[in-house]
Amino acid sequence: MQREGSGPGGPVPPPGYDRLAVGELAALLARVFERHGASAEVAGVLGRNVAHAQRDGSDSHGLFRIPGYLSTLASGWVDGRAVPVVTDAAPAFVSVDARNGFAQPAHEAARALLLDKLRSQGVALLAIHDSHHFAALWPDVEPYARLGYVALTFVNSMACVVPHGGKRALFGTNPIAFAAPRAGGDPLVFDLATSAMAHGDVQIAAREGRDLPPEHGVDAGGRPTCDPRAILDGGALLPFGGHKGSALSMMVELLAAALTGGNFSFDFSWDEHPGAQTPRTGQLLIVIDPGRGAGANFAERAEALVRAMRGAGQERLPGDRRYRQRRESESLGILLPSSELARLRELARRL
Amino acid sequence: MQREGSGPGGPVPPPGYDRLAVGELAALLARVFERHGASAEVAGVLGRNVAHAQRDGSDSHGLFRIPGYLSTLASGWVDGRAVPVVTDAAPAFVSVDARNGFAQPAHEAARALLLDKLRSQGVALLAIHDSHHFAALWPDVEPYARLGYVALTFVNSMACVVPHGGKRALFGTNPIAFAAPRAGGDPLVFDLATSAMAHGDVQIAAREGRDLPPEHGVDAGGRPTCDPRAILDGGALLPFGGHKGSALSMMVELLAAALTGGNFSFDFSWDEHPGAQTPRTGQLLIVIDPGRGAGANFAERAEALVRAMRGAGQERLPGDRRYRQRRESESLGILLPSSELARLRELARRL
Repeated sequence: MQREGSGPGGPVPPPGYDRLAVGELAALLARVFERHGASAEVAGVLGRNVAHAQRDGSDSHGLFRIPGYLSTLASGWVDGRAVPVVTDAAPAFVSVDARNGFAQPAHEAARALLLDKLRSQGVALLAIHDSHHFAALWPDVEPYARLGYVALTFVNSMACVVPHGGKRALFGTNPIAFAAPRAGGDPLVFDLATSAMAHGDVQIAAREGRDLPPEHGVDAGGRPTCDPRAILDGGALLPFGGHKGSALSMMVELLAAALTGGNFSFDFSWDEHPGAQTPRTGQLLIVIDPGRGAGANFAERAEALVRAMRGAGQERLPGDRRYRQRRESESLGILLPSSELARLRELARRL
Repeated sequence: MQREGSGPGGPVPPPGYDRLAVGELAALLARVFERHGASAEVAGVLGRNVAHAQRDGSDSHGLFRIPGYLSTLASGWVDGRAVPVVTDAAPAFVSVDARNGFAQPAHEAARALLLDKLRSQGVALLAIHDSHHFAALWPDVEPYARLGYVALTFVNSMACVVPHGGKRALFGTNPIAFAAPRAGGDPLVFDLATSAMAHGDVQIAAREGRDLPPEHGVDAGGRPTCDPRAILDGGALLPFGGHKGSALSMMVELLAAALTGGNFSFDFSWDEHPGAQTPRTGQLLIVIDPGRGAGANFAERAEALVRAMRGAGQERLPGDRRYRQRRESESLGILLPSSELARLRELARRL
């Protein structure tokens, strides 16, 4: 399968690897999703999402996720053909029932109305419920920063994090993502799990047989462990930063689930759907137009903050690693093991 | 000065202590503020704020703050008579110029308009700039939860926290506070510094000669230290939770300063105002009406989350300690050293 220069102008890939343009990978993944139960619309959204994560080097949310997506689709747990129902809940509030489908197509379906509201009201909320979010969270906020807006989002997941002072898993990894425009470069974007680490990274460590740092998780008996398999096998993660991370995780449950009408991370069970892997919960997105208040020069102020952060010795900004990998992927193509590409092509063919 | 049963029905205070009803302490503090340069309006707001912090056992934001308030007022750095200017910036967006006054009176001045907007739009923003926030942050959000709303606020302060990976202080302690109603009890409220600890707690540890835990701060040379005096004397705090807390602190700078039009934590200097202690920055408040979306039963859902947290073994909820202390203060009066009460009465008299 190895081809010379298969990426856009890229050098010859190393033996056993291929390069694929980002759009090619997105289209291939869309075919994979469509062959495994997703509608064309849903498949297109998920294909782009996973391809962009792979492009940016988000290992735990790129191709690594494909088996989980297909397994959960095959289990009947999620509806890959769901048509989200968008409700104009209030002048600055959009509510979406994802109808047991994925969160990203629900977000897509509501985007135009959300932007209308944002432009007229100065701030707008998007509350998604009955949705499955199995992806990185930064792709949900970065596009708003590219339009000049500030965006903040919260999603809950599945019970795998012990509240601070507690004994049993209850919260999800419950990430928070934030994006803000800056005048002199790519937006400032972060995407952080409120757990001590992301669940995908625990899975990767388990697969690779690597130990985790201390104070990241407990085993099935509630005892501290550095073994990722012990965490996955009846154990649990801890919140990051002790009681503060735990409070933030509680906030994410309240915003992403109670406020949207979605499930809490402990509200659902996969028991009757063997192979199910996606949390059926909710998501809240807050988008603000900084141009409406006294912060009309927001992007210039953000640039001044970046200069000050660099001046204080902070060399790596949130998002830097992703943008660097993105530029490489966009100019050379995404580097993939040929065996993985062959497997994806096989999955795209199979009916 | 000791009087028997000076609190409302309280027992005799221990020798050397007095009890004061919450309202009495608030009124006394208002007189202190008014005698030291605040207008009656500002003095009333600050008096209640400090009395409520003392009532709730928030040691670092109660009477402990009075010398700092008076010193900063005397320095001419802050305008205790400022009249905030409220602007109707957009249908869901209120902007307030605090005119170099305190943030709490600016918030008060905008509250009615903010609530109007919230009720009509479903979500509303309050962006305060050119303001001094020297108080606990939870009092800014708890009242909204008591009205059935969800509130989230961010305030930046003064450069005393080194960004993750950096060498010099740049961020403030940059707290985040959150409040949400629950059906079966007091609102869920947290108020957390994004620094490893609150600046007031460093000052208290220094005064008491206590060492801090490791990984909380660095000395003037950027070396790790557990000595609170070394942190205050040219050193700096670290963010909580490593790069995640640092990213959240950056977000607070962007939301509380860039978005509002306020100063960053490193944008101002006290050099020309000896005695100045209050940060001249900004604050953002986001208030959401959960009844407008699919989360109409928010308070019941929050109660279910509380039950689950307790079921998972979490014994102390965010806010619990404050509410317990509040109930005691409200039934017995606030216990104060008689010497401190005498000093306050002296300060209230002096012109």
